[in-house]
Amino acid sequence: MTNHQEAMTAYLSAFVEELVQAGVKDAVVSPGSRSTPLALLFAEHPTLKIHVDVDERSAGFFALGMAKASKRPVVLLATSGTAVANYFPAVAEANLSQIPLVVLTSDRPHELRNVGAPQAMDQIHLFGTHVKSFTDMALPEDSEEMIRYAKWHGSRSVDIALKTPRGPVHVNFPLREPLIPILDPSPFAATDKKRHHVHIYYTHEVLEEEALSKMVQACNGKKGLFIVGPLNKKEIETKFIETARNFGWPILADPLSGLRSYGELDELVVDNYDALLKNDVFKKEMEPEIVIRFGGMPVSKPLKIWLESLSHVRTFVVDPGAAWRDPVKGVTDMIHCDERFLLEALKDAQVEQPEHWLNCWQSHNQAARRVLEGHMTSIDRLEEGQVVYELRKQLPEEAGLFIGNSMPIRDVDTYFMQTDKKIKMLANRGANGIDGVVSAALGASTVLQPMYLLIGDLSFYHDMNGLLMAKKYKLNLTIVVVNNNGGGIFSFLPQSKESKYFETLFGTATDLDFRYAAALYDANYEEVFAVEAFRDALDKAAYHKGLDIIEVHTNRHENKAGHDLLWQKIADQIERDSK
Amino acid sequence: MTNHQEAMTAYLSAFVEELVQAGVKDAVVSPGSRSTPLALLFAEHPTLKIHVDVDERSAGFFALGMAKASKRPVVLLATSGTAVANYFPAVAEANLSQIPLVVLTSDRPHELRNVGAPQAMDQIHLFGTHVKSFTDMALPEDSEEMIRYAKWHGSRSVDIALKTPRGPVHVNFPLREPLIPILDPSPFAATDKKRHHVHIYYTHEVLEEEALSKMVQACNGKKGLFIVGPLNKKEIETKFIETARNFGWPILADPLSGLRSYGELDELVVDNYDALLKNDVFKKEMEPEIVIRFGGMPVSKPLKIWLESLSHVRTFVVDPGAAWRDPVKGVTDMIHCDERFLLEALKDAQVEQPEHWLNCWQSHNQAARRVLEGHMTSIDRLEEGQVVYELRKQLPEEAGLFIGNSMPIRDVDTYFMQTDKKIKMLANRGANGIDGVVSAALGASTVLQPMYLLIGDLSFYHDMNGLLMAKKYKLNLTIVVVNNNGGGIFSFLPQSKESKYFETLFGTATDLDFRYAAALYDANYEEVFAVEAFRDALDKAAYHKGLDIIEVHTNRHENKAGHDLLWQKIADQIERDSK
Repeated sequence: MTNHQEAMTAYLSAFVEELVQAGVKDAVVSPGSRSTPLALLFAEHPTLKIHVDVDERSAGFFALGMAKASKRPVVLLATSGTAVANYFPAVAEANLSQIPLVVLTSDRPHELRNVGAPQAMDQIHLFGTHVKSFTDMALPEDSEEMIRYAKWHGSRSVDIALKTPRGPVHVNFPLREPLIPILDPSPFAATDKKRHHVHIYYTHEVLEEEALSKMVQACNGKKGLFIVGPLNKKEIETKFIETARNFGWPILADPLSGLRSYGELDELVVDNYDALLKNDVFKKEMEPEIVIRFGGMPVSKPLKIWLESLSHVRTFVVDPGAAWRDPVKGVTDMIHCDERFLLEALKDAQVEQPEHWLNCWQSHNQAARRVLEGHMTSIDRLEEGQVVYELRKQLPEEAGLFIGNSMPIRDVDTYFMQTDKKIKMLANRGANGIDGVVSAALGASTVLQPMYLLIGDLSFYHDMNGLLMAKKYKLNLTIVVVNNNGGGIFSFLPQSKESKYFETLFGTATDLDFRYAAALYDANYEEVFAVEAFRDALDKAAYHKGLDIIEVHTNRHENKAGHDLLWQKIADQIERDSK
Repeated sequence: MTNHQEAMTAYLSAFVEELVQAGVKDAVVSPGSRSTPLALLFAEHPTLKIHVDVDERSAGFFALGMAKASKRPVVLLATSGTAVANYFPAVAEANLSQIPLVVLTSDRPHELRNVGAPQAMDQIHLFGTHVKSFTDMALPEDSEEMIRYAKWHGSRSVDIALKTPRGPVHVNFPLREPLIPILDPSPFAATDKKRHHVHIYYTHEVLEEEALSKMVQACNGKKGLFIVGPLNKKEIETKFIETARNFGWPILADPLSGLRSYGELDELVVDNYDALLKNDVFKKEMEPEIVIRFGGMPVSKPLKIWLESLSHVRTFVVDPGAAWRDPVKGVTDMIHCDERFLLEALKDAQVEQPEHWLNCWQSHNQAARRVLEGHMTSIDRLEEGQVVYELRKQLPEEAGLFIGNSMPIRDVDTYFMQTDKKIKMLANRGANGIDGVVSAALGASTVLQPMYLLIGDLSFYHDMNGLLMAKKYKLNLTIVVVNNNGGGIFSFLPQSKESKYFETLFGTATDLDFRYAAALYDANYEEVFAVEAFRDALDKAAYHKGLDIIEVHTNRHENKAGHDLLWQKIADQIERDSK
């Protein structure tokens, strides 16, 4: 035992205890030498739960998934060097999707920086503009002031991560050898009487009365739309419904808004706008006079294109985080109000409802729904859209559904219509990467149960390493891999016409047999080609605790044709209805 | 065809052509939408070879391995968003190990930055201090000036990557839709008569006559040591031998110096110093009066500790890149001379040789070698050290050997003694990460044949995704996975005494059966437990073109005991010899 070890233990345990007091319950740790004192203190802490993930890239996304599902900050810990750089994709996603992460990295002390020491690289401001805050901590000392300093940074780190807009913070700890803290007696056993922990009060931004009444006035009697994109707010759905009912406006609800699956059905929710807005007649007929947008930009490209054409329409964007998520650049009124408070005020506002507006949206939406349902029963093999359609029917009450990027999120937008089941939908829609999705879903599975993941084959392959956590911690997740052997989305893009290089650069078939990946990670594996078999596989997975991989083989060309056919049928229906 | 597409094609093809003219032959491309025009132009270029890797983290390391083995700059190309962040580990390693990479990223145009557009994140200065240069290019234009600008940046990017010290550069291309360039007629068909390409002249730093003669004077008659760490210079080994012979000094040669396997045996090369320097008697007896260090810091920790104690000894550090790779902080004379030119001068310098110096080193080294060889024949099961010892014997002439970090590089230091075979040894010794090693070896295998990789199980797992490139391009690599089911190195560190949390945090057994990974990627797989079986497996792999995975199962406790026993035997030998 040396003074160094005593000081290091006191300093770091003060920091760790303060993280926990500020609300941290989980830490995702990757093995390494330089991070030893923090890792051992995490393990020794009586309430902190650690999850050990060998691949730091997966670890970053695992923590992201936990934080996304739990709405609590999650701590990440890695050793020094390139290990830390592996966090970058998850950090960038957390920053854009406003998920609270406290990224702790261990570093060489100053005398070993920039001297060619092993495993040392410049970790100062490593994540650049992609974190809300970076702190390079002082070397451990146990003076009263430096213990206060360590605690203060524990509180501050969690607070900054949680303050609207939420996001990742990075704290870098230079540490000297020996790296072993003193765990006997446990540093967490003694009560700290010297100073109380910081109580952090979270507040909400509310709109001034005058601004609110002007907003209501602007909306009064107008043909308006509520558009709700990805929104990670607890139980706010009924407030939207009440407000929309009061205004007589429809809600165009992205799957990640929560409004398609909050436990009730309501005809105010429009869920087929993606297909409807591919049609010029419809777009002209249903042009709004006013728009109020909530959350991130919805996934629908037809919606985005339509909004771009509506630059003459007054558009309120409600965004407490001032993230300016408005790629159409249509905002005329930017409101930084907390969504819940604004809806609370709007649902009781005195407004006249517009005529021939809501009904019109609803009848179009119902017509599109009938076409889609008819289309589903007319095909006998399992298409990609049908996977989503069936999944929606089969998912149990209170399930979580993590949705992969690229095709799955688009197919959920098209085929996952409103349900009266409570389904929590999650996706990485900050930077929309196909990386880290397996780990993010596994992280979410530690919070939400039963949990499902819908993912394409390339995205599944990209983070196969993530599956080790399922094996190790016996996590319960059902993964539906839609395998069209490559980048299915490119069949929908102009690249599909570049036949000379298409397969090499965009199709990129991997020809992998995922049954071996399943075997590697002790997963139950089912390969399905037909609807009935898919249902059976989902049934079977529901009874199995652990990892289930259901692989659905599809064909990129047929998939494109299937989508086109559905959209054509809906276009025909609109034409008939408009006559 | 629009003006936009014409301008984009002209601008980007000018850039691409200039990359090729400046010496780029290979590009590693990951699929994506935003990168489409550059990817298609790469594919269309008549001489540029493209390698498509779906996982950008692996792609980064694959390019690193190619550049390391070929000593040529390699281009990386990814789409926008988190894809780019996946390059960070390889970029950091390239920066520290001085490997030339030209990292091209595609980006949203300015009007889609910071507006919540899909897959858009801040890519400006994404790699911070970890690249030699960052350029955010202008949007494509085909004015004469902007074509010159594009070409100029093509030349400049390669030049900066190749200028000593070599390293990565990052060029970010904002691109607008439509993203399809015009390939008919091919933009590379026309001869560019407007402007010649830039000819880049590479120069070498040489030492002034006066400084050189002072250096020689300082060395004259002194007990000196040449210490050569990782050095990536072509055929410089005989110059070292000639210089050491002239001075009468031994060369302490790290495995990555090239001096243990350049095609000849020479007793000037000391290869057992790691074991010898664990002994205090030896260290005292063999203290030098002067040290000349070349290359990066050697892997040996006993050597590092010894050098730290020699702060009173005059120490020349030869480093043309001014990287200040001197964690012992012992440098007294810093020389930025090109190694080849300095050795050329020193080998013919008029110097007296010290007495009782070289012989003494040589006899100790020979004694240690005999102990090691005796130890190897005395054990009957395959220990980790024996894997290296056998591999050294079995490797064919002209083979490449990529060495994993953590235990493998240390075991190569201890057990891979001089051989008269020409073996090219490579490793990622910039940041010493265990990540990306499989991909780096595969990248190297496209240049060096036959190629071998020696790697631990955690490092193998970390980059298993890299194996897809072997399957896809039918690459020829033999991987020897030393599987001690977890972090074997921690058994040698103080962490091993923390029994309560050791297995959870440091041992981190994955319990993976790699035969499934082999099956997933169509590899030949052999599991071996004994020396004979290991030899047979290597034989078999030598006749098989493609991917071979030889898994050697070892035990962490036995491994630690085996190493300790060897070191004890060498210590005993030193004691006997010193009596």
